[in-house]
Amino acid sequence: MKIADIQADYFRIPLTTVLSDSTHGEMSHFELITANVRSDDGVEGLGYTYTTGVGGTAIHAMIAKDLTPILFQVDARSIESIWNQMWWRLHWVGRGGTAAFAIAAVDIALWDLKAKRIGEPLWRMLGGSTNRVKAYAGGVDLQLTLDELCNQTNGFLDHGFRAIKMKVGREHLAEDVERVAKSRELIGPDIPLMVDANMVWSVDHAIRAAKALADYDIFWLEEPTIPDDIEGHAKIAREGGIPIAAGENLHTIYEFQKMISQGAVSFPEPDVATVGGVTPWLKIAHLAEAFNLPITTHGVHDLQVHLLAAVSNASYLEVHGFGLERFTKYPFLLENGEAVAPERPGHGVALDWEALESFREQK
Amino acid sequence: MKIADIQADYFRIPLTTVLSDSTHGEMSHFELITANVRSDDGVEGLGYTYTTGVGGTAIHAMIAKDLTPILFQVDARSIESIWNQMWWRLHWVGRGGTAAFAIAAVDIALWDLKAKRIGEPLWRMLGGSTNRVKAYAGGVDLQLTLDELCNQTNGFLDHGFRAIKMKVGREHLAEDVERVAKSRELIGPDIPLMVDANMVWSVDHAIRAAKALADYDIFWLEEPTIPDDIEGHAKIAREGGIPIAAGENLHTIYEFQKMISQGAVSFPEPDVATVGGVTPWLKIAHLAEAFNLPITTHGVHDLQVHLLAAVSNASYLEVHGFGLERFTKYPFLLENGEAVAPERPGHGVALDWEALESFREQK
Repeated sequence: MKIADIQADYFRIPLTTVLSDSTHGEMSHFELITANVRSDDGVEGLGYTYTTGVGGTAIHAMIAKDLTPILFQVDARSIESIWNQMWWRLHWVGRGGTAAFAIAAVDIALWDLKAKRIGEPLWRMLGGSTNRVKAYAGGVDLQLTLDELCNQTNGFLDHGFRAIKMKVGREHLAEDVERVAKSRELIGPDIPLMVDANMVWSVDHAIRAAKALADYDIFWLEEPTIPDDIEGHAKIAREGGIPIAAGENLHTIYEFQKMISQGAVSFPEPDVATVGGVTPWLKIAHLAEAFNLPITTHGVHDLQVHLLAAVSNASYLEVHGFGLERFTKYPFLLENGEAVAPERPGHGVALDWEALESFREQK
Repeated sequence: MKIADIQADYFRIPLTTVLSDSTHGEMSHFELITANVRSDDGVEGLGYTYTTGVGGTAIHAMIAKDLTPILFQVDARSIESIWNQMWWRLHWVGRGGTAAFAIAAVDIALWDLKAKRIGEPLWRMLGGSTNRVKAYAGGVDLQLTLDELCNQTNGFLDHGFRAIKMKVGREHLAEDVERVAKSRELIGPDIPLMVDANMVWSVDHAIRAAKALADYDIFWLEEPTIPDDIEGHAKIAREGGIPIAAGENLHTIYEFQKMISQGAVSFPEPDVATVGGVTPWLKIAHLAEAFNLPITTHGVHDLQVHLLAAVSNASYLEVHGFGLERFTKYPFLLENGEAVAPERPGHGVALDWEALESFREQK
């Protein structure tokens, strides 16, 4: 059961539509970096991470050059110990950043491999009793006109979503209020509506915005300001009157521990592909549980549906708009507003390598 | 004065002796990643960063692929704005990690270029009135026998050093105490002695160690535990009775702000090559000053001698043992235990590219 081979690949994929939010500006591509780990009994695990268009070469290099050499002939089952080896191997240039992405790709592959060997879907191997998880559609829509925004929302509803997130952070707060008001009117009172500011606000502006948006029954306000400002988040949570979600830009269990223990976040939102993989994701979920908080997710819904299905404190799963489904063999299943994790062994994601090939940057 | 060219290079250089500390184990190589920035009036600035042997490919890729494209034709003088562009360009995969290293290399080159154009050494351009800075020899010596350790210490004294740092974190605390006692005996009562645990201890062990070492007049205890544990550092500082130094593994002004404002560090120790360059280094020094704290450094003494010479709250400069002097054209000057920053324009470091060539990994 030793690791016999690790193959890292890197693809740069145009988005079907250019996306925008308040911080990243326009995004035309996403990058997909994959790690295929094969054990000497022939089982293969697939891991992957992604970027918003920048940094993929570095992540690929870390997997291929810095991690691969220390993993050969290690027992593929000892994930906790492997994770720590990877963390310390990259520590000088790590503690977050690209290291968290590179480690994630390998760690996810190891969990996939472990579940495949056992012959169970990941959610079941991790102790889950159901494969159904509440899901919401994550719109990346800051620059859409009000009409386009409404069309998008109607599309989400038609698609079966029963919870929706939209971007805020337009130049004038009045625009945000108008767009949120219109969205709430459109979806009615029963559908949860989240808003996401992508770090663009000052703490004081965020508090003002939270108060202005509170009339529209906001499920959470996400990333109101920069993730480095824990006290600021706590202040917004205290004074703004809307629960705070944050975590897609945090990369370690320690960062989550600080956010959570300082009352800075109501919905911790780790992204398994950017926080270092399943291993730290579970620790963060357990940390949140011990602090009596739910856990939500960011991105890579095909993977994270398993994780939310496995924990006791699951909130909504984000269904993300990067369009990886163009390159996956099995469709992502949504029923009655719930995401359904597959029964296939492992995480059950199989990539269409042929379709990806034309977007290859490196192998 | 626009940026016309950026050249990134990456070298992997064997250490003259294998070094060791309590966390990184044995280090056989260091990696040097350089950024040469040329403005359209023909002035060239040199920046560089380094690793303990892992991650160089990723850093090189970030400079060459992710940063270079956004810098062409930007006014090379607008460093504050360029720094922020780099930070946000890499934010998704950044907030520390390799991004801090890549940004550092470019930022240092821009400061070098700016000072060269003005025709002043960096320390003077930054407002310094003297080019002399107290310096200490940073031993990387955990695995040395007691005899070898004493030989190293005598070598430092012969070399003119009047302050010395040694590693602690041996398997048994009694060994650390014996080695520190012997070192103190050797150097006498007047020479500052720092100790560095390289993150290996638990908080409780660190407090026990600090109390056991206090008899030997320890100037500071460095990195007693992992940098992520700010409260732990604060507790060690409070209960251990020895001032705490930390910072080589912190990569943002925000991390330093938390450490400093929570009373977790007495000697903030940013490394200009790993914290994002001169721009954030100065902000951290000013932050420390506002908190009534001195500032010290880690690594790249040729660069940081300028920075300490320029600020009001300078403590000791670390003179580091990686041996970059084998590849620099001008010797690093030490007089009466003080480091002397050069009068040459810029930071005054010129690399011997021919000597480096045989260690090239990438261009």
